[in-house]
This record gives sequence, C-alpha cells and structure tokens, in this order.
Amino acid sequence: MKLASKIGLASALVALPSLALAQDATPGVDASSDSIFILNSLLFLVGGFLVFWMAAGFAMLEAGLVRGKNVTMQLTKNIALFSLAAIFYYLIGYNLMYPLGTWSVDGVLSGVWGPGVLEDVGVGRDGADDYGYASTGSDFFFQLMFCATTASIVSGTLAERIKLWPFLIFTIVLTAIIYPLQASWKWGGGFLDEAGFLDFAGSTVVHSVGGWAALTGAIILGPRIGKYKDGKTIPMPGSNLTLATLGTFILWLGWFGFNGGSQLAMGTVGDVADVSRIFANTNTAAAGGAIAALLLTQFMYKKPDLTMVLNGALAGLVSITAEPLTPTLGGATLIGAVGGVIVVFAVPMLDKLKIDDVVGAIPVHLVAGIWGTIAVVFTNGDASLGTQLYSIVVVGLFTIVTSGVVWFILKATMGIRVTEEDEINGLDMAELGMEAYPEFSKG
Amino acid sequence: MKLASKIGLASALVALPSLALAQDATPGVDASSDSIFILNSLLFLVGGFLVFWMAAGFAMLEAGLVRGKNVTMQLTKNIALFSLAAIFYYLIGYNLMYPLGTWSVDGVLSGVWGPGVLEDVGVGRDGADDYGYASTGSDFFFQLMFCATTASIVSGTLAERIKLWPFLIFTIVLTAIIYPLQASWKWGGGFLDEAGFLDFAGSTVVHSVGGWAALTGAIILGPRIGKYKDGKTIPMPGSNLTLATLGTFILWLGWFGFNGGSQLAMGTVGDVADVSRIFANTNTAAAGGAIAALLLTQFMYKKPDLTMVLNGALAGLVSITAEPLTPTLGGATLIGAVGGVIVVFAVPMLDKLKIDDVVGAIPVHLVAGIWGTIAVVFTNGDASLGTQLYSIVVVGLFTIVTSGVVWFILKATMGIRVTEEDEINGLDMAELGMEAYPEFSKG
Amino acid sequence: MKLASKIGLASALVALPSLALAQDATPGVDASSDSIFILNSLLFLVGGFLVFWMAAGFAMLEAGLVRGKNVTMQLTKNIALFSLAAIFYYLIGYNLMYPLGTWSVDGVLSGVWGPGVLEDVGVGRDGADDYGYASTGSDFFFQLMFCATTASIVSGTLAERIKLWPFLIFTIVLTAIIYPLQASWKWGGGFLDEAGFLDFAGSTVVHSVGGWAALTGAIILGPRIGKYKDGKTIPMPGSNLTLATLGTFILWLGWFGFNGGSQLAMGTVGDVADVSRIFANTNTAAAGGAIAALLLTQFMYKKPDLTMVLNGALAGLVSITAEPLTPTLGGATLIGAVGGVIVVFAVPMLDKLKIDDVVGAIPVHLVAGIWGTIAVVFTNGDASLGTQLYSIVVVGLFTIVTSGVVWFILKATMGIRVTEEDEINGLDMAELGMEAYPEFSKG
Repeated sequence: MKLASKIGLASALVALPSLALAQDATPGVDASSDSIFILNSLLFLVGGFLVFWMAAGFAMLEAGLVRGKNVTMQLTKNIALFSLAAIFYYLIGYNLMYPLGTWSVDGVLSGVWGPGVLEDVGVGRDGADDYGYASTGSDFFFQLMFCATTASIVSGTLAERIKLWPFLIFTIVLTAIIYPLQASWKWGGGFLDEAGFLDFAGSTVVHSVGGWAALTGAIILGPRIGKYKDGKTIPMPGSNLTLATLGTFILWLGWFGFNGGSQLAMGTVGDVADVSRIFANTNTAAAGGAIAALLLTQFMYKKPDLTMVLNGALAGLVSITAEPLTPTLGGATLIGAVGGVIVVFAVPMLDKLKIDDVVGAIPVHLVAGIWGTIAVVFTNGDASLGTQLYSIVVVGLFTIVTSGVVWFILKATMGIRVTEEDEINGLDMAELGMEAYPEFSKG
Repeated sequence: MKLASKIGLASALVALPSLALAQDATPGVDASSDSIFILNSLLFLVGGFLVFWMAAGFAMLEAGLVRGKNVTMQLTKNIALFSLAAIFYYLIGYNLMYPLGTWSVDGVLSGVWGPGVLEDVGVGRDGADDYGYASTGSDFFFQLMFCATTASIVSGTLAERIKLWPFLIFTIVLTAIIYPLQASWKWGGGFLDEAGFLDFAGSTVVHSVGGWAALTGAIILGPRIGKYKDGKTIPMPGSNLTLATLGTFILWLGWFGFNGGSQLAMGTVGDVADVSRIFANTNTAAAGGAIAALLLTQFMYKKPDLTMVLNGALAGLVSITAEPLTPTLGGATLIGAVGGVIVVFAVPMLDKLKIDDVVGAIPVHLVAGIWGTIAVVFTNGDASLGTQLYSIVVVGLFTIVTSGVVWFILKATMGIRVTEEDEINGLDMAELGMEAYPEFSKG
Repeated sequence: MKLASKIGLASALVALPSLALAQDATPGVDASSDSIFILNSLLFLVGGFLVFWMAAGFAMLEAGLVRGKNVTMQLTKNIALFSLAAIFYYLIGYNLMYPLGTWSVDGVLSGVWGPGVLEDVGVGRDGADDYGYASTGSDFFFQLMFCATTASIVSGTLAERIKLWPFLIFTIVLTAIIYPLQASWKWGGGFLDEAGFLDFAGSTVVHSVGGWAALTGAIILGPRIGKYKDGKTIPMPGSNLTLATLGTFILWLGWFGFNGGSQLAMGTVGDVADVSRIFANTNTAAAGGAIAALLLTQFMYKKPDLTMVLNGALAGLVSITAEPLTPTLGGATLIGAVGGVIVVFAVPMLDKLKIDDVVGAIPVHLVAGIWGTIAVVFTNGDASLGTQLYSIVVVGLFTIVTSGVVWFILKATMGIRVTEEDEINGLDMAELGMEAYPEFSKG
C-alpha cells in the first residue's frame, strides 16, 4: 500500500485539479507540519466512527421496515455483514483497492498485496507512511466503513426471503472483491479517475454499487410470496416505524462523517472550511429530500407517508454525496429535493416491474445515486456529463455482471431462497428459532 | 452576515468581558494562527453534529411518551420540523439573527439580508469571512441546530391532538422569524446583550422560547379528550418507555455539543479547558436532576417514577444551560438537582391548570429554563438578577405574543385541532393511514 | 489532585516505558506547545462522550434482554446508576483514584482528598494543572465514564429480581470506593502498576471488576424463580432483540472512545497514529468476536443465535481492551474471536452452575476480560504472564471480598430480593407501578 499510494498521489497531483481529489488515496496537502498529519487523521477517525454508526442505522431502518416475524434475521444479517466486511476488507479488499496506481490487468496480477498492515506502534515522522498527510490506520478505518456501507444497502432489499448463509457469502465477495475493485477505478487512482470522473463521497462508488447488487439480487431472488397478486401490489407494512425513523436519524448523523470525512483533510484553513460547507450542504440536502417527499405524498395521496419521508431524506443524502462541496446551500437543497421526488416515483415503479425491494433501498441508493452523480455537472465546472454517465454505466455493468454471477452460483449450489413454508412462518423461527418480540401477540 | 458579524464582534468586545461572549456572534480570540481557525471550526462541527443528534432524541422521547395510536404522527412531525427548520433558518432565520449589530426597527428594515451564504470552496486565509476565528459554514451549521431544537420542544407538548400542517406552518414561522429575532437580541449582539443579559447556551434563548411557544399553543389548543374529567387528571401512559429513555440518553449526549460548543472556541488553552469544564458540569447537572427526581418521587409517591427521572435529567440539563462554565462541579450538581425538583412539582401543577403537556416539555424547558437563567447570578459575578429577570420577561412576552398571533391565525383559518373522532381513533390512521406498530394488538 | 497527579507523573515516567503509560494518570508527552494540550484534551472530550454513550448502550441491551414486565425497572436502574456514578465519583472516587502515587495504607489515610475540583475558568498556561498535557476537566470527564461503565455491567446480571434501592446503594459503594481504589493500583500509579501490570483500557480494571461484582451479587442473590428446574435451564427470552442489537452497536461505537481515548494523548504524530491503530484493532476484534460466535452457534446448535452474536461482539471488544495497541489487525481479530468463543461456552457453563446472569455480562466482561488481560503477553513484549495473572487475582479477590461484604450487609439489613409474588408479576408493576409497553398485550 505504501509505495502504491504514494505513486497514486503523484499521478493524481499531476492529473487532477485539487478540488477533484476528494476520496482519492492522497490529496495534495502541505506536508510541512505535524499538525496537518494529526488533524487529517482526526478527521478520518471522527468521520470513521460516524460512518460506523451508519451500520446501526441500516440495522434499525431495516428491522423497522420488515415484518415482525423476520426482525431477528434482519438484525443477525446486519451485524454479521458488518463484521464480515471488516474482516474481508482487511484481508483482501483494502489492498485490492489501493495498490493500483492505474487500473490494468497487469495492475491486478502483478500487484503485491496481502492483508492490510498498519504503521508501527508509536511511529515517528520518519516512519509514518504518509507523514505530512495522515496515519495509515486512520485511513484504513475510514475506508473500511465505506466498504461496509455498500454491503448494508443490499440486505434491506433482499429481506424476508433470502437465506442467511448465501447472503453472507455474497457479502464476502462484495466487500472483498467487487466493491474494492471498482472503487480502485476512482479512489485508487484508476481509469475512471484518470478519465475525470467525479464522485466525491460515493453516490456511484458506494451507493449505486450497493443498489446494483441489490437490484440484481432482487430480480434473481424474486418477490416475496403474496407481494404481487392479480396485478396488484399488496402492502406489507413494516413492524416498527419508530425504529425505522431512528435508523434514518442515525444514517443522517453518520452522513456528516461520510461526506465530511471524504474531504480527506482538515489541517488547513481551506480544508476545514470545505468540511464545514460539506456538513451544511449534506444537512440541507437531507432536509430537501424529506420535505419534497412529504409534500409530494400529501399532494399525490392526500396523506403524507412517513416511510416516504424517511426514504426521501435518505435519497437527499445519497443525491448530495457525489458532490457535497461545490453546491450552494440552495443548490444542495434542490439536489436533495429531487432525490426525494425520485423516491416517491421510483418506489411504485419498481412494484410495477414486480421487483420487490423491502425497504426501498434501490430507489434511495441506486436511482438517487445516479441522479446525484449526474447532478455534479450542475455545480462543479470540472465535471463532464459524458464522463459521469460513462462511469455510471461502467460501474453499473461491472456490478451487475459480477453480482449476477455470484448470485447464480449461489442459487445453483446452495440455493438462496428459504422454503415457502419458512417464508410464511417467518425467517426468525424457521432459520434462527428465535423471535425478536416473543411476548407481543401478533395482530 | 459578514460585515454585520464583524461589527457585532467589535461592539461586543467593547461592551462585554470575554467571559460573557459565549454564543455571541464572534468571541474575542487571538487571530494569529490557522490552528485557532481550524480548532474553532472543528468545535462547531462536532458540537453541531451532537446537537443534530438531539433531534433524534426528541423524536424518540416523544414517540415513547405518546400513545401507540399517535406514534407515526409524532415521528412525522419530528423529522418534518427538523427539515423545515433547516430550510427556513437558511432562507430567512440565519440572516435575521446575525446582521443586527444592535436591535432596532431600523436594523430590521434596513438590514440587507437574504439566504445564508457560505464561504467559497477552498477558501484561503484572505478569503475567509472570519480568518482567525472560524469558518462561516461551521458556524451556520452549529447555529442551525439550536434553531431546530427550539422547534423540537414544541412538538411534544402539543402531541396527540394538533393537526400536522398547522403545526408545520407554526414551525416555519418559529424557525424563520420568532426564534431568530429574539436570538439576535442576545447572540446577534442586540439590546439584551448590551443590557448585560447572560445566557451561555440558551436556557432562555432556546429552551424557554420553545417552552413559551408550547405553552401558548397548549392553552389555545386545549387538553386532549378525557385528560381532565370530574376534576381529576386521567393518566395516559406513554406507549414505549424504552424509547423515551433512549431519547433522554440521546439528548444528554447531544447536550455536550449544545453547551460545550457554545464556548464557541477551543483553539487556546483557556478555551479548551473551559469546554472541558462545561462538559463536566453539564454531565453532573443532568445527574443531579435525575437523582433529585428519583428521590423526590420515591419520597412523595413511595414509588420512583421513570418518566419523572428522565424529565429530571433533562431539566438538569436545561438548568445548567444558561451558565455551564462558571459553576463548580458541586454547584452544577445542585443547579441541576433544583431543576429535577422543579419538574416533579411543575408537572402536576400544569395538570391542575388543565394545561395538557403530553411529554412534560413545559416543566423541563420553560420552568427549568427560567430557573437556569436566574441561577446564573449565583455563580457568575457579571450577572445581574434584574437584567436576567428583565430578559426572561422580554423574551417570554415576545414569544407569547408572536406565537399566540400565529396560533390564532392558524386556528381561525385552517383549524389546528383534529376532529374528536380522529383524536379518539388516533392521528396515525386518521391523518396518515399508517400505524407505527401494525402487528401488535392493543391492550 | 493537582500535586498528587504530578507526583504520579514523575514516578510513572521513571518506572515505566512510555508504551505502558496508557490510562496512567499522566503519560510522557512533550509539553512544548499549546497544541498538545488542546489536542489531548480534545481526545478526552470526544473519547468521553463516546464512553458516555455506552451507558445508553447498556440500557438498551439490558432493556432488550429482560422480559417485558421488568423493562421499566431495568431502564430506571440504568439511568439512576449512571447518575449516581457521576455524583459519587466526583464526590469521592476521583480523588481516591488519583492522589495515591503508590498504594499504601498510609496513602489512603494521609491523602488529602475531597470532591473533584476543576481548573479555573479561562485558565492560562501558567494556571493549568497539567500544562503541556491536558485539562483537568477533560481528564475528569473521561475517567468518570470508565467508573460508570463498571456499574453498568452489574445491573444486567442481577436484573429481574433485585430490588431497586439496594442495587443503587451497591452502585454508590462500587463507584465511590471499590472501583476507584483498585483502579488506583494500576492507573493511579499504584503497586500493580509498579509491578509491571499492563491493562491499557481496562479488561481487568473496568470489565473484570464489573464482572466480579456481578458474579458475587448473582451468587448471593440466587437465580430467578423457575430458571433452573429439574436439572434443566428454562430459557427466558429477552423481550426486544432490536433494542438489544441497538445496544450492542452503541457499545461498539462507544468502545472507540473507550480504547482510543485510553491512549491518553493525540498531540503528536506517534500518538495519533497509535489512536488510529487502536480504532482499527478495536473494530476488528469486535468483528472477530461476532463472527466466531455466529459460526460456533451454527456449528453447535445448527442455528445461529443472535444474542450470542451480540455478546460475541462485546466479548471481542472486552478482549482487546487490555491491549488494543500492539496487536496487528490479524492478531486483534483472533484475540476478539477467542472472546466470542469464550462466550458461547461460558454462558451454558454458568447455567450449569446455576448462576443466573440475565444478559450474559459475566461471560462477556469477566471471562473475556480475563482472557484479554492474559492475551497482552502475546503482543506486548513488556508484559509478563505472571504479573498479569497476579494482577487479575489481586483485583478479583479484592472485588469479590468488598462486593461480598456490601451485598451481605444489604441482604441482612434491607434485603436485596423482591418478594416471590413481585418477581412473578414483574418488577415494573410491583416496585414502580408503571409498564414499559402498557398497550401491548402479553403472549
């Protein structure tokens, strides 16, 4: 990692204006003092624990939006997927993501990689891998959380019918290989980065990848029993909207770390002012998404829909993620609001296509992720619409194909879907023998 | 904002000792280095995300304290009010709060204001609005969260009977105009500030304002059906005390940002030591409030009352908010404990007056807020009891009158209360068509 | 405290290599600049609020793992115990922990102590207690949270049958005297510290102490009615696994502050890089513990057990706490994984011994705490197995004896157990007259 990331830095500095450096391996900061090293590392640590917290947010959101009989399973999947992501990103993913100065078959094949290695204990200036920038451990910690987020997105869509172990095996492949490979194309200084693709904190690299993997899985897995009947979509309301709301607030909070930390530096006046802009813009985009969904559901259905408002806020967050820095507050609000509108229309559209997405993760993370990636061109003069679209397509095709292969192999070998009986009885009793709310009688 | 805040700074520096500068637009810090700019901005960002988290705390507290049939509505109100606060504080409130060097009709009418504007991307020392102090974006982010807190306070009191849209319209007026106007009197360097009013983090400016607005609304709206019957108060227990407890812990955590961030600086030895004092004092005041309520309910009712303990902790937090810096640890514990005692007596007193406050927000935020504002005189030699009382009254009258006008207009035009049938059936099904816990049968 | 801590510093600097200084009163940092003072204080503040958050984590974990009829009581205990810890650690504990340069009867008897005292408001370089290190207030805030954690551990084990007030009185003794006294032996520079005992963030000093106190209490208190019948263990499933999972995620998040903050410094390149290592290692140890428990329960029982996975993650965290700095990522994962394995075997073992631990706190905090303390010898060359074992035994015996005395006195005087009838009806209605979920009928 050490050498490669420095090479990545050098090439990045040559190839790109400094504004575009967000989330690249190594931004161009002045290496003149300890203070920058400390403050940049601190940004990664604080940003990292905030993004960690998003894992809890996904767990609560999904546990709240599935039916009571599948809650324990959803919780088990969420804590297990995060843990597996942590281990496999360390074992494989991190080194697959960063050694590639430029993407090439040769880059993969000849790259010397192995499990992630941290700096020595009590490292001094001379020994620090990136003295003048930030500690390796802080960077690893921060990057890991992005990888885990990608996996969290998938679990919600496929809830209430996928078996535990095939899902976890998919998670391993996603976090060890699929996510890191494509992330290296942008953030490892690979070919999409060289082409001028801009994706500050990952509307495409993180959210759309999770969304594409979820979409592929949802199509191969099929809808829940009884979801689409006689041309109608049967509502299957979530069991606990308080937890879904809590999950949304947690995600919103974590997103300050997700986007703010992706500035990758706060050791200078300019960097900390940029992080501040990002915090403000991220917040207002979420607000825009929530209010857009609130107004639109009131207008369309005469009754506001809380789950739409929650997903609207999340879609606002995803929308601003590709470029949370350059928009004005007003621009960020509008970008987020469009995300909220997208959700309100995309949810029923997916149902028409009989693609069963239990929590609405595809509208939120994929569709709003695409929107956010495109919206970069409105506020960042360095963005090219063609390159943004090209990158969306490249990442999408790669994720669909690789995910599809994995899902098909899993389906052909161990099977990915629980039996009809188990699905009807609920995965909790069938697969785990344990209820989430054993004392409360079902209505 | 730029010019005005600098003017505010200059006048504040002349008028006040540096201790009293907390929460003013611009404290008197040495502008000699980048480090101060970065660390002050970081305090705003960390403080800001902690106060953001309080929005989730209010949502959980209120969702836990209303009955099951009104939970979805309470969640919807909470996420919507935060989002509206974010947008309208940006559009109107922020600039209304800070351009006023001194309060005057002329100040309002001639002030050039518009939506909040952040510093340029990658701003340098020369371009920073307050180089030597902190980034505009971080300040905006932090201040916004205080405005949103004010609105969160109102929603709990009026729960279970107010219509969604009138409540949200009130929220807009509150966060765009009522809160920022009166906040400018103190924190914008206005006439209360010049008079020597001390309110470090807002016992009066934030909490009492939310409380007065809630009280005004509660009187105009009237109590819930069946709450007061034949001279008796009928208990209507909250549906989920676990969530109420979670909400309290979230608020407690967020309060470290609320009070600690209100030091407004941590780039010097003295400032960071003060922030540390504030953290320690804030914590112990909450503990004092909780234990006081625990002991008092045990003594008075022979059984400790968890909801009183929770509100006691919150009242302790509100009580210390006007001056979390100067008390000793022992003093802070006592100030908080008095807050806890206040809650235990104020809750039944409100019921005697047939003012129906669903979650106890008036005792916690208004009554303890007044107590905290008065208590400043015990530990801060610069405080004058007369000025504190005068400011409490001025802010109170202003909030009652403006809130009252808005509530009456809303009542006269669109109506503010749901129908009797809807109230009995619950707002969730009536207004939203959605239950929070659809699978759990009601007892 | 001021003088004593400086004496402690001097003796620590002489006696120990700098690596071993974690959690000692005062590590050996360069005192040459304000920046170090500010950044170290900031680490304590951020670390401290994260550890505060663990109090909420314990509350949610325990509320989720007890039965519905005891939830309100468990919540009341958790908020009350934290509040009491805050007050009594301030009144007695903090000064009992730190004035003792070396442990001696004389040290206790002659030590001049009283309630904790913070630095003056707006303190300058000359007035700061530890200029060049960190502010007293930040240190106090951080240390307090560790003391409170110890008490949180006890409440889970003894749930569903212990009376409120005896439990709270025990909490006072634990946080005012038992915890601080033994903590002074290591972190106050006492005899265990001088003997070379290594316990970075407290596998023994915090977690095993909580565990021993819980174990002693559980034996004296006896199991819940009906838990062990005809040689069989009757499962008593927790009422809300979503909250238990939320609690685990909260604890996981808080642990970054617990372990990372225990570096006690981040004002230099080496310190912040070490904090980064600790964050990464802490996270991967939790992941290792969760996955180990997942695989093991799948293998042993054919069905993964979510509560075991949750406790596995927590055991991984406890295991890495004694030494989160020196292990590699791989080593940390394995240390955590062993913790997860321990839990899966220790839970049924305790049941065989008819020791009723409602939430599994003894396996997690005591058994994994012992494992973690021993595991230090695998990665830290300065550790001696003999000294580690000796210290585990000394701390264990002290805690068992002192806790035992307190429990017996409480039992003999006021009684510690509710009546059989109250236990069957649930503590909520019997002792508090209040249900946590009043609207949901029991199955």
